[in-house]
Amino acid sequence: MQHDASKHLVYISGEMFPPAEAKISVFDSAVTLGDTMTESTRTFGHEPFKLERHIERLYNSLKVSRINPGLTPEEIAAITLQVLEENLPHVPSDEDVWIVHNISRGTGALAADPTQQRSPATVIIHTAPLILSDWAGFYTEGCHAVTPFSRAIPTQSLDARIKNRSRLAYTLAEAEVKLVDPAAQSVILDTDGNVTENKGGNFFIYADGALKTPHARGALAGISRETALELAEGLGIPTQVTDFQPYDIYTADEAFFTSTPYCIMPATKFNGLPVGDGRVGPVTQRLLQAWGELVGLDIAAQAQRHLEA
Amino acid sequence: MQHDASKHLVYISGEMFPPAEAKISVFDSAVTLGDTMTESTRTFGHEPFKLERHIERLYNSLKVSRINPGLTPEEIAAITLQVLEENLPHVPSDEDVWIVHNISRGTGALAADPTQQRSPATVIIHTAPLILSDWAGFYTEGCHAVTPFSRAIPTQSLDARIKNRSRLAYTLAEAEVKLVDPAAQSVILDTDGNVTENKGGNFFIYADGALKTPHARGALAGISRETALELAEGLGIPTQVTDFQPYDIYTADEAFFTSTPYCIMPATKFNGLPVGDGRVGPVTQRLLQAWGELVGLDIAAQAQRHLEA
Amino acid sequence: MQHDASKHLVYISGEMFPPAEAKISVFDSAVTLGDTMTESTRTFGHEPFKLERHIERLYNSLKVSRINPGLTPEEIAAITLQVLEENLPHVPSDEDVWIVHNISRGTGALAADPTQQRSPATVIIHTAPLILSDWAGFYTEGCHAVTPFSRAIPTQSLDARIKNRSRLAYTLAEAEVKLVDPAAQSVILDTDGNVTENKGGNFFIYADGALKTPHARGALAGISRETALELAEGLGIPTQVTDFQPYDIYTADEAFFTSTPYCIMPATKFNGLPVGDGRVGPVTQRLLQAWGELVGLDIAAQAQRHLEA
Amino acid sequence: MQHDASKHLVYISGEMFPPAEAKISVFDSAVTLGDTMTESTRTFGHEPFKLERHIERLYNSLKVSRINPGLTPEEIAAITLQVLEENLPHVPSDEDVWIVHNISRGTGALAADPTQQRSPATVIIHTAPLILSDWAGFYTEGCHAVTPFSRAIPTQSLDARIKNRSRLAYTLAEAEVKLVDPAAQSVILDTDGNVTENKGGNFFIYADGALKTPHARGALAGISRETALELAEGLGIPTQVTDFQPYDIYTADEAFFTSTPYCIMPATKFNGLPVGDGRVGPVTQRLLQAWGELVGLDIAAQAQRHLEA
Amino acid sequence: MQHDASKHLVYISGEMFPPAEAKISVFDSAVTLGDTMTESTRTFGHEPFKLERHIERLYNSLKVSRINPGLTPEEIAAITLQVLEENLPHVPSDEDVWIVHNISRGTGALAADPTQQRSPATVIIHTAPLILSDWAGFYTEGCHAVTPFSRAIPTQSLDARIKNRSRLAYTLAEAEVKLVDPAAQSVILDTDGNVTENKGGNFFIYADGALKTPHARGALAGISRETALELAEGLGIPTQVTDFQPYDIYTADEAFFTSTPYCIMPATKFNGLPVGDGRVGPVTQRLLQAWGELVGLDIAAQAQRHLEA
Amino acid sequence: MQHDASKHLVYISGEMFPPAEAKISVFDSAVTLGDTMTESTRTFGHEPFKLERHIERLYNSLKVSRINPGLTPEEIAAITLQVLEENLPHVPSDEDVWIVHNISRGTGALAADPTQQRSPATVIIHTAPLILSDWAGFYTEGCHAVTPFSRAIPTQSLDARIKNRSRLAYTLAEAEVKLVDPAAQSVILDTDGNVTENKGGNFFIYADGALKTPHARGALAGISRETALELAEGLGIPTQVTDFQPYDIYTADEAFFTSTPYCIMPATKFNGLPVGDGRVGPVTQRLLQAWGELVGLDIAAQAQRHLEA
Repeated sequence: MQHDASKHLVYISGEMFPPAEAKISVFDSAVTLGDTMTESTRTFGHEPFKLERHIERLYNSLKVSRINPGLTPEEIAAITLQVLEENLPHVPSDEDVWIVHNISRGTGALAADPTQQRSPATVIIHTAPLILSDWAGFYTEGCHAVTPFSRAIPTQSLDARIKNRSRLAYTLAEAEVKLVDPAAQSVILDTDGNVTENKGGNFFIYADGALKTPHARGALAGISRETALELAEGLGIPTQVTDFQPYDIYTADEAFFTSTPYCIMPATKFNGLPVGDGRVGPVTQRLLQAWGELVGLDIAAQAQRHLEA
Repeated sequence: MQHDASKHLVYISGEMFPPAEAKISVFDSAVTLGDTMTESTRTFGHEPFKLERHIERLYNSLKVSRINPGLTPEEIAAITLQVLEENLPHVPSDEDVWIVHNISRGTGALAADPTQQRSPATVIIHTAPLILSDWAGFYTEGCHAVTPFSRAIPTQSLDARIKNRSRLAYTLAEAEVKLVDPAAQSVILDTDGNVTENKGGNFFIYADGALKTPHARGALAGISRETALELAEGLGIPTQVTDFQPYDIYTADEAFFTSTPYCIMPATKFNGLPVGDGRVGPVTQRLLQAWGELVGLDIAAQAQRHLEA
Repeated sequence: MQHDASKHLVYISGEMFPPAEAKISVFDSAVTLGDTMTESTRTFGHEPFKLERHIERLYNSLKVSRINPGLTPEEIAAITLQVLEENLPHVPSDEDVWIVHNISRGTGALAADPTQQRSPATVIIHTAPLILSDWAGFYTEGCHAVTPFSRAIPTQSLDARIKNRSRLAYTLAEAEVKLVDPAAQSVILDTDGNVTENKGGNFFIYADGALKTPHARGALAGISRETALELAEGLGIPTQVTDFQPYDIYTADEAFFTSTPYCIMPATKFNGLPVGDGRVGPVTQRLLQAWGELVGLDIAAQAQRHLEA
Repeated sequence: MQHDASKHLVYISGEMFPPAEAKISVFDSAVTLGDTMTESTRTFGHEPFKLERHIERLYNSLKVSRINPGLTPEEIAAITLQVLEENLPHVPSDEDVWIVHNISRGTGALAADPTQQRSPATVIIHTAPLILSDWAGFYTEGCHAVTPFSRAIPTQSLDARIKNRSRLAYTLAEAEVKLVDPAAQSVILDTDGNVTENKGGNFFIYADGALKTPHARGALAGISRETALELAEGLGIPTQVTDFQPYDIYTADEAFFTSTPYCIMPATKFNGLPVGDGRVGPVTQRLLQAWGELVGLDIAAQAQRHLEA
Repeated sequence: MQHDASKHLVYISGEMFPPAEAKISVFDSAVTLGDTMTESTRTFGHEPFKLERHIERLYNSLKVSRINPGLTPEEIAAITLQVLEENLPHVPSDEDVWIVHNISRGTGALAADPTQQRSPATVIIHTAPLILSDWAGFYTEGCHAVTPFSRAIPTQSLDARIKNRSRLAYTLAEAEVKLVDPAAQSVILDTDGNVTENKGGNFFIYADGALKTPHARGALAGISRETALELAEGLGIPTQVTDFQPYDIYTADEAFFTSTPYCIMPATKFNGLPVGDGRVGPVTQRLLQAWGELVGLDIAAQAQRHLEA
Repeated sequence: MQHDASKHLVYISGEMFPPAEAKISVFDSAVTLGDTMTESTRTFGHEPFKLERHIERLYNSLKVSRINPGLTPEEIAAITLQVLEENLPHVPSDEDVWIVHNISRGTGALAADPTQQRSPATVIIHTAPLILSDWAGFYTEGCHAVTPFSRAIPTQSLDARIKNRSRLAYTLAEAEVKLVDPAAQSVILDTDGNVTENKGGNFFIYADGALKTPHARGALAGISRETALELAEGLGIPTQVTDFQPYDIYTADEAFFTSTPYCIMPATKFNGLPVGDGRVGPVTQRLLQAWGELVGLDIAAQAQRHLEA
């Protein structure tokens, strides 16, 4: 069975559409203001992973951005499972999917009373084949982490923990690192030069005997980040949530990214220099294996099948 | 003749649609990444105002964000005029329209070579009735300018001169000022406390015998801002492009916003205190009148007809 | 017995005065330079609470600001108790008092040798009825916490831990939040957008299962803050002293202020949005109750009697 | 005739007092909050200098700090002239006086509606002998300008242009420079390292053929500063209002301070190094002479008589 | 005649050495502390260009860093001319040379009295063949200007106008841009994201009809920069010394670097995008030609001979 | 036996030289770019202390600055021990030595490929008598710690953990504190006003029952700092690695510096005010004694013999 993206129906505010017909108005604030809160969840073995935590975070984003989705978290969860159920028959048994939530303020702009809303929210929930071919090689070789010259948007301008679709700053930072290496993955600094995050993931180093990741301010409080910290604790690896800078990465033993689709992506090169001995390190491997055990799936193997396909 | 928004056809990548059918894919990077460059032009007496300057700025935004629209500026201008010609018959002779350009990177994400593009750009060009009822009262009474506590995104994170649709930070700042006054207009500060801009306009004060507006860094280099400066020079009013802070506004003689739809909007109150004597000042009035003469239209009168309607 | 403020004698540099005659020279540096170190202590059941810790902090402020009070801490403590003894007879048995210390450099400006002093310090110690009517309603309803747009004075300009009477910046921030809500209590951010403190108190959130309050840099190291942390530890509630931002407050379960007069003041609204479910939360209530047990007084009940009066 | 300070009556909110009896309540917000707006004017030949400009600035400070003095500018001016008239008979004909205005919010704290006031303002207006003995030697020898390590309070925390009596930060910076030299005059930097001002004056350099002084943000917009700029223009000396840093002072030809009492105070040493050739320079001298001509007084000579006295 | 570097004698504190023997102690503060002030001058047609201005700036650097060279500017100038005279006979008539000054504090560290010196300064003056082969191709093709992610050292940490040999930060920024393009030339931003300078040159853009270069704070006040501004004024090209950011470069018509060896180096690409039309622009060419006329030499032609050699 | 510095041979890139002949080319990047990585180790009882940790840190500095020393860590260690063995016979048995490593990029500048090198590194390894006479008195009296007004170079400009010889900023900060007191030791703040480090050491306070030292960002991660933290833990003294500010030092019980030569140097005065009671405190003494026990040497006594000599 082939995994055919065109079979994945898209839920939009109460109706299901085939992908080619899944459209929203050009007057929706999603288009005119980037005014969309979002989550991306994945399945492992066709089971959604930490869907509740994703929905909880989604409601935090909605609250802070004063968008009323018109649905309770339980209703969103139920619709999500329906969409998944509808689409899973088209997913090969050894494949998995993204589950994406996008909720915008709808076609009206912000109301005079910012807790009111001029129009119903636009609620988009869809699945998509989880194709990891761009990243699959990194499980064994590691990726090249590169620092863009643009700085992360400060918390006092827009808090990165509000997971939203006004993402131009991330895209431009991405364009900068691609100048160094077309396969580079960005490690964005804040305006003080501290490491924050990647365009869609968190960053970890293993150094001085501890696993370290930046504070979740100026960085998304990633659910994969949470998972990596929990797995490390389970394995008896000390963890630290702490500010660090490029120097710490250059001199670390290991480094990796975490994100929903790939879970853990080893980084073996940083701005042209090897991280540690330039190979995927043992702590990274143990964490990836533990993750696989947690979800009953060889994560790297699944991704690598996309390479061979 | 009534001005009926539903008659304004929308151009999307080569085709014309009635507004209710003007839609784009939920997979478009406009929706998924806020990855859209934009301009808003208006007509005066059915003639587009400074359309060429708007298109020039649009191409600057496209260049910096590495979006290839697939059309030359001349082609964009020609399509714009066709859209306008198509829609003007539905516009009463004493009414005017917005002309909006939105160009996204299309359905593909950023390519490995950032100067390439994985999919054709999505080009949206439409007109809309220019309804100024929310602002019309301000021409005579002045508005209440209020400072949100969130700060403008710094230039080194995302330059405000890239006129784009990733606007969540502006919306949240707007929500903050609406807590003070549901009709408040925001005056956003940068991370050093200097005045930058409004969510969609520029800000001016008249103080110490000169018209002053902040540098166009951390603020859009507005075309209405340009026009106001040109008109002031024509009237022999000294102008300064300079950093200033809330103190300068509290102690100014006059203050106003500029933006495409309303041209000049007097501000007579700032964070609860009167600006000058709390009335629309003579310099503001002279500039508004000069603008009207430039375009052959009583700008405030046109707006006030919307109030009465 | 009525609580009559006019009966509270004021100690000024060795003499006692009725309040209406308690005056200092307009040439005192307290007036000309805001050059006064200060503490506010309160009684519970007519017993001063942590007076020694207040005096210890007072001497820290005096040292850093290079004011020689001309008295030892023991002497200050003894005078304080005398003032209290003098005035308590006028205090109803179910009422309590503020005890205020104000010590300025006196009428001379800073000497050429900054460890010397050109004139004797002015030492003011007085009591005052502790009237909590402005806050009493908040124990059950919670207050509205609001963020001003002005930023806290940075540590490198003037350390907030020097408890002093040059408080104009706090007053102006207070004026800003009163624009949102006349009963609003300020939550001031630092120049990086981190939460610092209120004009006269500290701020806490309960989130992710822990009680959190900002570092005491850019914020007073409040003695009520200390007490709240100690009580939480006694109750087995995990505590964290950590930077946080508005996002954390919007998404917290509970929030409250601490300060000498009211001890703990619940905040149930933050910038127009409910904190948690918008009601005073169980952790806040447990802490308030524990405080009451520590001092043998129903703190909220005492305050609420002022409402009814 | 001796100049006897004890003869200068002090106006306090409608009454005149001898200095020893000029007192305000310890409950006045001047004492409890440093909540006082202020101006210092001087006379030349018994005539007040730019009194109107000082009063205009005072009303700017009052407005921004939301203090209602309960008097019009004209009334304040009239009272000021009465105080002066009352006290001038005690001033020797070759001596001059300070005229000081201090206006606090009174005994009430900020009202819930920040434009209202809970109590009448406290208005203090007094004169005092203008004794320049501490500075007199600097007219010929120049002073030692020294940079404290503390930074000026940023505009976004408290704008230095609000001339107020919450001055502890200035006092502590002063204490720091006195460690280098007991006669040092401070040159305070902002948090970016730019020169701002002195505790009570502005700073100028003459370099590259132009007279330069920092922007009046993060620095008081001094009226003596204005006068120095006007005099320079009158003398054909190019002027620049511009950011500069310590490097510019180290490499300048000349440097000086301006302030109401001393008008122009040459600085011939900066952080231990000579400014220019280490002597009072010709541009400084021409400006001081021009100032003397403007006011009909040999400013340095008057000051030096205090030395000899 | 071949240009033989080994013939250029080096002056070290009073003696002349062949290059291979030109050495200093490993205990010299030049080696142990990077404690060296420096200038690089070049000849045109064997005549030193603006040698006096270079020596003047050298003495500014020496003063601010409190190094006493033990020689007057006139003595340094005289020795420089002697070194040049000694070495010019080995320079082909169509070639030119660098003249380099390096003056360190000598073998002693900073004295307790910072205006004193524990050891005589080490004074190094030498010439070297001016080989421009690395840059020669840029006169016609333009170079690729690239932004490193590291930020310029702020003025308040170390002022870039002190021209010194503690240059590690420049070298590391250089390493970063070489990752993008081995021939890239760095355009370093300050901590606010404003353009400063190159590792050894200044940066200009031509945009909106004016030639613009950043303020000389956080950037060396280059003598070639001065020359370019003077030439522009001579040609009637408006000039502005102003902050600008990457957006301004992306949208400029032309861009170039200035520095002593190459004078003007066109930049036709910025972070992967063309500047203007991607070719060396007319304003740049006019300035380069004017410079050649000023010094009587075809600057680009001389450089290009090195390519062919 | 006298300790004669002239007997200590210096290793330079494979050869041994007497100190007077230990020289490097004026064209070496050590001289022209401050491009040298460095370590200073000391002996106790003629045994090198933590040499391996120093060499490990040296290789971190070399990696980040992309200098290839051309030797393995083991080879460097072996050469170091040979140099020590060669020179120890000239060292009296109760004296000790510094061991200094300086490794520069050699005479070539940075290569186009920044991981390549145009010339062999220059490797300098030498010993020197450890003369502590400048510091010896501080063991009993304590030193005067003073804050310069210049700020530490931020991490995003040049990370202080790259231990290098581009040290001009430290020297200028040192010159500033010497203005206050010729024997002052600097305590440098970062651009936010947090304490970082001394020109060559780290800083600690003992306050609130814990030993505190700043994070090793913006400060060297000193090996003596590590040792002090380890000793404190061994003695059961709680330790905190945390940001702190001058207020914390003014109000601390004790303070001291750590650095390789002196190990622990008590500070009993801070910006003119006593630290604690102004005497060397018990925690400092216990740590110094524990250090002596660790290395089998009375550290203060050895230093004080230099005073008497």
